[in-house]
Amino acid sequence: MRIAIAGSGALGSGFGANMFKNGYDVTLIDGWQEHVNAIKRHGLNVEMNDVPFQVEIPVHHYDQLKDVKPFDVIFFFTKSMYLEEMLEKVKHLIHDQTVLVSTMNGLNHERVMSNYVDDTRILRGVTTWTASIKAPGETVFLGQGPVEIGAIVDGAETHAKAIETILQRSNLNPLLQTNIHASIWKKICINATVNTLGTLLDANLMTLKKANHMDDLLEQIIHEISDVAEIDNVSLDVPEMVAYLHDVMEKVGPHYPSMHQDLVVKNRLTEIDYINGEVANIARRHGIPAPCNTFITHLIHAKESIMDAK
Amino acid sequence: MRIAIAGSGALGSGFGANMFKNGYDVTLIDGWQEHVNAIKRHGLNVEMNDVPFQVEIPVHHYDQLKDVKPFDVIFFFTKSMYLEEMLEKVKHLIHDQTVLVSTMNGLNHERVMSNYVDDTRILRGVTTWTASIKAPGETVFLGQGPVEIGAIVDGAETHAKAIETILQRSNLNPLLQTNIHASIWKKICINATVNTLGTLLDANLMTLKKANHMDDLLEQIIHEISDVAEIDNVSLDVPEMVAYLHDVMEKVGPHYPSMHQDLVVKNRLTEIDYINGEVANIARRHGIPAPCNTFITHLIHAKESIMDAK
Repeated sequence: MRIAIAGSGALGSGFGANMFKNGYDVTLIDGWQEHVNAIKRHGLNVEMNDVPFQVEIPVHHYDQLKDVKPFDVIFFFTKSMYLEEMLEKVKHLIHDQTVLVSTMNGLNHERVMSNYVDDTRILRGVTTWTASIKAPGETVFLGQGPVEIGAIVDGAETHAKAIETILQRSNLNPLLQTNIHASIWKKICINATVNTLGTLLDANLMTLKKANHMDDLLEQIIHEISDVAEIDNVSLDVPEMVAYLHDVMEKVGPHYPSMHQDLVVKNRLTEIDYINGEVANIARRHGIPAPCNTFITHLIHAKESIMDAK
Repeated sequence: MRIAIAGSGALGSGFGANMFKNGYDVTLIDGWQEHVNAIKRHGLNVEMNDVPFQVEIPVHHYDQLKDVKPFDVIFFFTKSMYLEEMLEKVKHLIHDQTVLVSTMNGLNHERVMSNYVDDTRILRGVTTWTASIKAPGETVFLGQGPVEIGAIVDGAETHAKAIETILQRSNLNPLLQTNIHASIWKKICINATVNTLGTLLDANLMTLKKANHMDDLLEQIIHEISDVAEIDNVSLDVPEMVAYLHDVMEKVGPHYPSMHQDLVVKNRLTEIDYINGEVANIARRHGIPAPCNTFITHLIHAKESIMDAK
């Protein structure tokens, strides 16, 4: 079985390295030339929960895929806004049985992917693994998982089971979910609150947790998300979710959220359009009010332009 | 006629100095001991549009008002959150004809003042004069005015006319308004957008003007304010107001808004509860949705607590 990791940045190369190390035929694909070159020259160096290892894993720049053979499974780990671009780069590597898997943050990825394969060949996931790139070819991979994984429509259970096996044998701690939409919306609640507020207020998670009026902010955002999630038949309990967010902020404590790292630290564009922005879009299409999620999306975009993020 | 300036910080002492210089019997009242001491020792030094002058003006600390005689007019220039405290300090200096005037930013001041005098003796104003304190006893006073001034109920026209005369003879450029509520709401639209967004995004007005999605942010906030202003029979045209705000941002250009100076520069608490916060309060009382103004209020309070503002 040929597996590709489309988007082999920090998280993607961490996933790929673990699968490759455990015997799978994995190929990395990425658009960052220095990173691709470094892996070709010196292999991929991974520091996984403080334990280093190295893999001589195949890698391609996404503009050099002409002679590559199709894959049976493609995992997507791009930033949300580059998913479509990546799908265009790899579409000739999709055969009529290829399964596409996205464990990326954000909403709407399955809709983008469904332009390329049948819905039964799309799996969505949610993960608490995190990672960062130390230098080209060097990934720091952190966590214990899990990777919640599930089909978006009925009839894909076999595929879900197959992906679970890959992740299980690669020690990536999968968790097969019959209702992956519930997992996705729960993760959206984290990204749409902790990430955006930490970015707007320039605060790490412990500071955020202790800030005055934090629960008011969380409640306003989550309340709107909860109304929108109903469309996916997902029921979110607002006070329960606020308590869960406090737990997340407590656990992650001194860390800054990933959106803060993207925008404030690295001066990069954020995934806001796929988080609060997509909540606002779905709400608009269904005539549900989502003013706070809309407002946050505009605020983050304003901040991106003020910081001249690329 | 005895006139007091209750709250003689930057703006208040600028107003007081101009009245005193033009022959009025003006007494300054303030709670900042060093400022009071400096004025007692060296007079009040004013730099008004780059022209310096000095006045030997009477001044009292607000805790040393025991032997002071009542005033015929009291102008209030405290920060909104200290208005009630100041009224308590000076209430024994109010006689049965005393006129109270507030040209402070924010909503709700007349309601606070109406606990002390009849509504016909309350005047509200809006000003574009600005000022800053260089050092204790030294004020930089800037602008050309005007000071829009008006009664909040019928039957106070004589008082409004009298205050207009004082301001006129003091070269403070008054403008008598028959509908002062319209002026107040227009000023609220500035404070509730430019001030808060400049503070949240750490941006001066020109940067703010050029930021992506700025009109979306302005429209969301102004739309809610416009719905709430209807309660005061004030009609705000949203696109017209957005165009006006662009004009304000263009003119004030490289300056940071006053709320940014309060919180980000001086680490002080803001007047948010009397701006977006009061919009949200009035909306709540009347069953009008104002989620963005509510959300902004929470965000600014969260930022205050994260910055440990006092």
